[in-house]
Amino acid sequence: MKKVVTFGEILARLTPPGFKKMAQTNQLEIYYGGTETNVSVSLSILGCQTMHVSRVSDDFLGNAALSNLKSNGVDTSYVQKGEEPLGLYFVEPGAVVRSGVISYNRNHSAFRALEPNSIPWAAIFKNADWFHWTGITPAHSENNFLALKEALMIAKEMKVTVSCDPAYRTGLWKYGRKAEDALKGLVALSDVFIGGAEQFNELLGTDFSLSDEDFKKGSIALKAEFPKIKTIYDKTRTGKNASWHQIEARMWNGKNLFSCEPIEITHIVDRIGTGDAFAAGVIFGELNNYSEKETLAFANAACAIKHTIEGDANLADFNEINQIARGNTSGRLIR
Amino acid sequence: MKKVVTFGEILARLTPPGFKKMAQTNQLEIYYGGTETNVSVSLSILGCQTMHVSRVSDDFLGNAALSNLKSNGVDTSYVQKGEEPLGLYFVEPGAVVRSGVISYNRNHSAFRALEPNSIPWAAIFKNADWFHWTGITPAHSENNFLALKEALMIAKEMKVTVSCDPAYRTGLWKYGRKAEDALKGLVALSDVFIGGAEQFNELLGTDFSLSDEDFKKGSIALKAEFPKIKTIYDKTRTGKNASWHQIEARMWNGKNLFSCEPIEITHIVDRIGTGDAFAAGVIFGELNNYSEKETLAFANAACAIKHTIEGDANLADFNEINQIARGNTSGRLIR
Amino acid sequence: MKKVVTFGEILARLTPPGFKKMAQTNQLEIYYGGTETNVSVSLSILGCQTMHVSRVSDDFLGNAALSNLKSNGVDTSYVQKGEEPLGLYFVEPGAVVRSGVISYNRNHSAFRALEPNSIPWAAIFKNADWFHWTGITPAHSENNFLALKEALMIAKEMKVTVSCDPAYRTGLWKYGRKAEDALKGLVALSDVFIGGAEQFNELLGTDFSLSDEDFKKGSIALKAEFPKIKTIYDKTRTGKNASWHQIEARMWNGKNLFSCEPIEITHIVDRIGTGDAFAAGVIFGELNNYSEKETLAFANAACAIKHTIEGDANLADFNEINQIARGNTSGRLIR
Amino acid sequence: MKKVVTFGEILARLTPPGFKKMAQTNQLEIYYGGTETNVSVSLSILGCQTMHVSRVSDDFLGNAALSNLKSNGVDTSYVQKGEEPLGLYFVEPGAVVRSGVISYNRNHSAFRALEPNSIPWAAIFKNADWFHWTGITPAHSENNFLALKEALMIAKEMKVTVSCDPAYRTGLWKYGRKAEDALKGLVALSDVFIGGAEQFNELLGTDFSLSDEDFKKGSIALKAEFPKIKTIYDKTRTGKNASWHQIEARMWNGKNLFSCEPIEITHIVDRIGTGDAFAAGVIFGELNNYSEKETLAFANAACAIKHTIEGDANLADFNEINQIARGNTSGRLIR
Amino acid sequence: MKKVVTFGEILARLTPPGFKKMAQTNQLEIYYGGTETNVSVSLSILGCQTMHVSRVSDDFLGNAALSNLKSNGVDTSYVQKGEEPLGLYFVEPGAVVRSGVISYNRNHSAFRALEPNSIPWAAIFKNADWFHWTGITPAHSENNFLALKEALMIAKEMKVTVSCDPAYRTGLWKYGRKAEDALKGLVALSDVFIGGAEQFNELLGTDFSLSDEDFKKGSIALKAEFPKIKTIYDKTRTGKNASWHQIEARMWNGKNLFSCEPIEITHIVDRIGTGDAFAAGVIFGELNNYSEKETLAFANAACAIKHTIEGDANLADFNEINQIARGNTSGRLIR
Amino acid sequence: MKKVVTFGEILARLTPPGFKKMAQTNQLEIYYGGTETNVSVSLSILGCQTMHVSRVSDDFLGNAALSNLKSNGVDTSYVQKGEEPLGLYFVEPGAVVRSGVISYNRNHSAFRALEPNSIPWAAIFKNADWFHWTGITPAHSENNFLALKEALMIAKEMKVTVSCDPAYRTGLWKYGRKAEDALKGLVALSDVFIGGAEQFNELLGTDFSLSDEDFKKGSIALKAEFPKIKTIYDKTRTGKNASWHQIEARMWNGKNLFSCEPIEITHIVDRIGTGDAFAAGVIFGELNNYSEKETLAFANAACAIKHTIEGDANLADFNEINQIARGNTSGRLIR
Repeated sequence: MKKVVTFGEILARLTPPGFKKMAQTNQLEIYYGGTETNVSVSLSILGCQTMHVSRVSDDFLGNAALSNLKSNGVDTSYVQKGEEPLGLYFVEPGAVVRSGVISYNRNHSAFRALEPNSIPWAAIFKNADWFHWTGITPAHSENNFLALKEALMIAKEMKVTVSCDPAYRTGLWKYGRKAEDALKGLVALSDVFIGGAEQFNELLGTDFSLSDEDFKKGSIALKAEFPKIKTIYDKTRTGKNASWHQIEARMWNGKNLFSCEPIEITHIVDRIGTGDAFAAGVIFGELNNYSEKETLAFANAACAIKHTIEGDANLADFNEINQIARGNTSGRLIR
Repeated sequence: MKKVVTFGEILARLTPPGFKKMAQTNQLEIYYGGTETNVSVSLSILGCQTMHVSRVSDDFLGNAALSNLKSNGVDTSYVQKGEEPLGLYFVEPGAVVRSGVISYNRNHSAFRALEPNSIPWAAIFKNADWFHWTGITPAHSENNFLALKEALMIAKEMKVTVSCDPAYRTGLWKYGRKAEDALKGLVALSDVFIGGAEQFNELLGTDFSLSDEDFKKGSIALKAEFPKIKTIYDKTRTGKNASWHQIEARMWNGKNLFSCEPIEITHIVDRIGTGDAFAAGVIFGELNNYSEKETLAFANAACAIKHTIEGDANLADFNEINQIARGNTSGRLIR
Repeated sequence: MKKVVTFGEILARLTPPGFKKMAQTNQLEIYYGGTETNVSVSLSILGCQTMHVSRVSDDFLGNAALSNLKSNGVDTSYVQKGEEPLGLYFVEPGAVVRSGVISYNRNHSAFRALEPNSIPWAAIFKNADWFHWTGITPAHSENNFLALKEALMIAKEMKVTVSCDPAYRTGLWKYGRKAEDALKGLVALSDVFIGGAEQFNELLGTDFSLSDEDFKKGSIALKAEFPKIKTIYDKTRTGKNASWHQIEARMWNGKNLFSCEPIEITHIVDRIGTGDAFAAGVIFGELNNYSEKETLAFANAACAIKHTIEGDANLADFNEINQIARGNTSGRLIR
Repeated sequence: MKKVVTFGEILARLTPPGFKKMAQTNQLEIYYGGTETNVSVSLSILGCQTMHVSRVSDDFLGNAALSNLKSNGVDTSYVQKGEEPLGLYFVEPGAVVRSGVISYNRNHSAFRALEPNSIPWAAIFKNADWFHWTGITPAHSENNFLALKEALMIAKEMKVTVSCDPAYRTGLWKYGRKAEDALKGLVALSDVFIGGAEQFNELLGTDFSLSDEDFKKGSIALKAEFPKIKTIYDKTRTGKNASWHQIEARMWNGKNLFSCEPIEITHIVDRIGTGDAFAAGVIFGELNNYSEKETLAFANAACAIKHTIEGDANLADFNEINQIARGNTSGRLIR
Repeated sequence: MKKVVTFGEILARLTPPGFKKMAQTNQLEIYYGGTETNVSVSLSILGCQTMHVSRVSDDFLGNAALSNLKSNGVDTSYVQKGEEPLGLYFVEPGAVVRSGVISYNRNHSAFRALEPNSIPWAAIFKNADWFHWTGITPAHSENNFLALKEALMIAKEMKVTVSCDPAYRTGLWKYGRKAEDALKGLVALSDVFIGGAEQFNELLGTDFSLSDEDFKKGSIALKAEFPKIKTIYDKTRTGKNASWHQIEARMWNGKNLFSCEPIEITHIVDRIGTGDAFAAGVIFGELNNYSEKETLAFANAACAIKHTIEGDANLADFNEINQIARGNTSGRLIR
Repeated sequence: MKKVVTFGEILARLTPPGFKKMAQTNQLEIYYGGTETNVSVSLSILGCQTMHVSRVSDDFLGNAALSNLKSNGVDTSYVQKGEEPLGLYFVEPGAVVRSGVISYNRNHSAFRALEPNSIPWAAIFKNADWFHWTGITPAHSENNFLALKEALMIAKEMKVTVSCDPAYRTGLWKYGRKAEDALKGLVALSDVFIGGAEQFNELLGTDFSLSDEDFKKGSIALKAEFPKIKTIYDKTRTGKNASWHQIEARMWNGKNLFSCEPIEITHIVDRIGTGDAFAAGVIFGELNNYSEKETLAFANAACAIKHTIEGDANLADFNEINQIARGNTSGRLIR
């Protein structure tokens, strides 16, 4: 069984039921997530041995978050606890022409206060096959940036494959470091890149479009700048409205561009965490030596099915995803 | 800040959760609405100073209804209380090919018993810019008709602009007065008319169709009959089924016909109150001196977004509506 | 008022709310159903006198199941009670590309243990016009097979019209009898056949396709083998995904093939029990001497509206179905 | 199986969950009840054949109310339907020192409009052993008074035993008739009287206290005035607060006073309908020829257990009540 | 109508339903409160004109909090908005021997960041009769301390009566100032003191016990130190366990000690906010010139009834409280 | 960290919300438990390393049950999966004088079909300090008896301490073996006995009463018969009614009788699993070398707090239990 390590903030998400606005309800639903957490949960359900490293509040909410990870099989042995509160976010869900809205409460969370040198990365990476990080983590605080940097350097030493999803999130990066510079140093230590034109342009100062041609050019440029990168995966999305999207994916392996069949999500149940589901699909395919086509199809299917699952993490199991990856998108009832 | 006054019954709506039939559930959801109430709530959220005049039951249900209005910023200082119960309606929600069904319980409500001369309209209209009424109010009882008539006459004296949505509702108008005659007298005191072929034909005894050409002809005929009317706004709706509609709007300013882009509502969350959302959008545009095109786009956007909001009133704020009015109907998640 | 008798297992269905996976929730919704039960409930709501014969657990769950049938007007006087538990099934609902999944807990239910000679069929069929059975009942146990066989023989004697929906369900038929042989004997005692290519091929060892031409050929072959069969009704379904289907129906009366307008279900609320709703529609049309076209349209409409109703049974009343049967699929709100 | 007939309004009760105030919640629970309805439901669950006569709204709410009665086995064949709404009441539940509050919405209900000569009482009373009425029914309207009067006269002719619970409810009796006079005529036609000092004083103009001695004196005076009355049952209640009561009962059979062990209800779940549960217990004991002691103990136990059951009617079955009647009030878990 | 101003943080409270632990549920209930907020809400419901001054997050959660205040009639015109999140707290409710547990998330809230000189106190106190503050506010931050200090000085100038509840809360007071010193300066500007031995000892360095004698001595000492203080109110509580308390109250008017009847709360629904309910009761009595006895009884009754109301604020109205204050603690159902 | 192993059926419990009867609700709450499972969960939360051995259904319900155990930290690596369904039980909760009622659906569960020689006990007991079993497991089936027997023999070899709670449950023991004989062989292999007069009498054919004196005599007799038994723990319960109990505990260590302070549970939240909470408390005390008094106090406190926690397992942590064990039963709110 492959072992995957992730590192990042665990968030509790609080959201009104149905399509209610916050002031309309005296009840909220609570889910536990976080972009890297979601990757761990999905890979754990797919059968990998997973470990998530983080820091949570030392109260019943932090414990509930860890219970949730443990219920999905994620090893939380190296999660630290602190006085600060758990990171939270509130969501007013959208529908059709109405945008969902997120309001974060994570600026002073237990995770941001994590001490950079407090994590025994060598022990954590023992027997590990893979480490995944995203652009959210180094965007929080100097502490978080340094801890991630340290992890990447030790991963490199220990020959753990590294994937990154270096999405730039506006509203973060407020502690002083320039996003572009910080991310460059981290991407340079990574092997698998999940991103496309937007990320290329941020990192390289280029102006690539969303076309296949530009994805290819951007990939080549990226690999030129960051020679450790081997493969680049990108997903694209076109949307009728908040309830109806179509998703596609493509990848560049250094020689060829591969793409997969688009999947139409005609009735979106939950849009959040679909990118993390895609990342987990990419990692699963790579870990299991899937062909490029197969990995893309699996990752796109994982992303698709996440749109039908409530909460942040993709709770679909291998069979559920694989059926879609093999082209059966009928959703036929299984008795 | 512009001040808008509305007058009409406040209703509590009781509805099974999800798509359940009444006999399937031991839980109901409760919302507070009423066609003119909805206009006040929407305009209040859009930033207007609003006052709603009504009469509710002198019990905890009447109080809860007022709490709801107050929570949305509507001034309820002139709402009276009485022994009779609050008006209610029950809804079995529909979906796709199944019609939703409404059952009213409002015939002996506190509102119907309101004494015509009991309302200090002059005080209420002090500093008011706008008064809105609908065809529901005069349809309830002689008392309600007389109170509205009085309001309109004082509004005229005090130079308060008056908008009307003189929809004829079958099942009402049972107290003796002929709808056509009663409405004519009230429309004659109004400045902005919200309605189309159906209303033209009821009031004028004509036979106009839903075509743009007939809307224009009907508008001209209406203005001929009711010279105080300055602008006429109409919305039209085509529907695949109960869950999927397309809405459009047009207006006649006495010289030109304007129309706006249609908006497709592919996944209707709540169909009720969409006309009231449109009316509030029209009033907001007129009050803020929007151009005809802008007012139409804003009103149509308001109507569209209401389809995604649970309950009777449009709880969307200015930014949410304006984004759609400016053509962004993607419903993209806002972080 | 026509009297219809049904015989089969009553099941409780347990399902997470919304689209949650089982491990995501501490709440389940409970519905009572079962394929023949659903037919009785629908026909009772349509105005028939109905009686359902079964065997349930002698505990509060069995009682709750009977309460549910009684609430819908079904006579449960001949339902037996036993020590064994009520049959159950759990559903994880699907959406779009995600399949719903059913897990049964019915192998040792009170129904399976029903004693074959314990049912007073002659008393039950007194004044009865119709008896309906499905292929699920004989698939459970030898006891269930024998009880059904006995019912059919007495029905024949007492000239009760018999309809059958001899669907073959994988996962059942584990007690020894070969499905094909058992069903042949039962179909031979029936007058109305609800099924198509799949059922033809199972019973006749043929290889018909889903085409109209093959439905006609199969119907002719079926009537040749089972001369008591007079009419054959078939519904077909094409699906974009789990949330969006289109349904059609056709029938063969021995001379002509009839078909009806397809209906598109763009937003499926609940897929379960739609076949039973169709069967009830067929029986209702036949009992009321509808023309072939009318019966087909009514049955297809019944099937369509069931997709919008939560739970197992079609709770729509005559007017709701008839409106759709007459071509009004707009689902317009009824005030 | 004994057959019992009841006549009275069916009410839907709407109440916030838990201990919330109306303005605190967007969800309400719905129950179906009504004082005579509750008696029918309880007796049906105890094994009697019961029929309830009433008039409900001809809409989905009226149907849901009938479904509820049918689910509990009550025959609703003679329930009429009308245009007027179903009677409703809203409850804000109390606790400890806080009083629960009820707000009625029943003044213009379908029941009040019932035509006095429209009910085929002779058919209804065929094979009936018992008829039960309460003081609520004649308090609504002249129509309701006349219908009840007619019922009682035919019951007398047909030798159906009649019980009455002639509670006087303030807030009713607004249609003109004087409560005292009306009730006297109805009590004169009854055999079993459920009431005590309060009812004696209302009917006889006396001033009896709650003492046993006065109950005896009052009973003697009552029987002197109404010679058809054979037995008189009274329950008394002392309460620490809204959550903690103690109940007792006594009866007079014309010769002796009997009483029963008090029962302490330390944690009241639902206070409503406990008197109706007592009445049903009295009727059950009388119908089954229980001794005076046994009847009292059973009725008191029925009243006690109703305090632990949500909703209006006593849903406890014979074994549950009988265990308490026999002195086992431990509430020990039954596996 | 008397006008009361309060100043303090508005908090959202998030709590599992029933008695569930956080990890047991995917649903939370949300209430809006805060100690001074609760006083405003209660006084508003009692009929006072109230205004609450605060600073909330500029997002849908801050808006929902304000909606809640407005729904209860509290004027929120001077509430500021900021980038920081709304203060939150999570509660795991206790029962019997199990302690409820609170976890705060308020250290970096929008309220703490409020600028001291940003509040137009002179405008706010125009026509105000009363200002209430608690020891929570100055415990948050230097900003909050300074703003409160400023308010008190202007209140003094404008002759607004000031009440204080200078409870010391461990876990706060982390910004540098010593609680004792800070509070002394604020108490010196106040007229009505709500507190007892604990507060005396904190402020005066004394060692008074909970006895009446010591309450008297402490009150005398307090008035000696803070001559502006006129009356001192104290409530005491004895508890069997988390579900069953008894409350009492006493006061010192400078000459005499008054006390009131104890009230037993045998079934606590919600313990939070009971002290704030008491404070509101004191203010209401003082504002309405109640006698000492009457004020104590009213405040104790307000405290008692809050134990039966879900959420933070006392939502009971005047009649509900007054009935208890007059000695009727029976909680009898009101029809 | 001490390692504890448990073996037994995992059950899902399905129960109506609040105090509803099954037929009153369309929603059920689901909890996961089972007597030995509950012990593992409690010990895991108390900080022990725990492993539970069982066999569950190979479907989403079995997975959800395992997720629940994992969320509480229990190692489920040796749980097997099978075709048969998960064991279930339905509960209608009781209150005051009303008994709760349980209906089981476990006779053909996945656990009963577990193959006796299929469990690698030697691997499981590696590094284990403790093994706990109850009388429920051998009562199910010969398979379950044999598997347990095997476990006990290997535990003895590997010097794992064994505790037993040999409760005899009527309704089980239907597969042929005589309870008394079977249990004797298993008790003989155990070190710590949890039980009292009832268990003594079943195993020894004696007639001991519940008195302390008889507990002492019974303990001496038990140790004489089963010399491996070292300590005997017993809890006793007296109940006012289903909502109000008092619990006590005592133990015999071979020389002395120890007892602890009784604890009154005035408002029971959930009665189920309180015995398992006691057993976990005993094991925790023994494992941590608590004195007899301390162990008793801890176990009694654990039992007490479980009465306030919803679901089957005691989710209280060490501090929550220890506070009560040290005599603080006030349940004071912790901020």
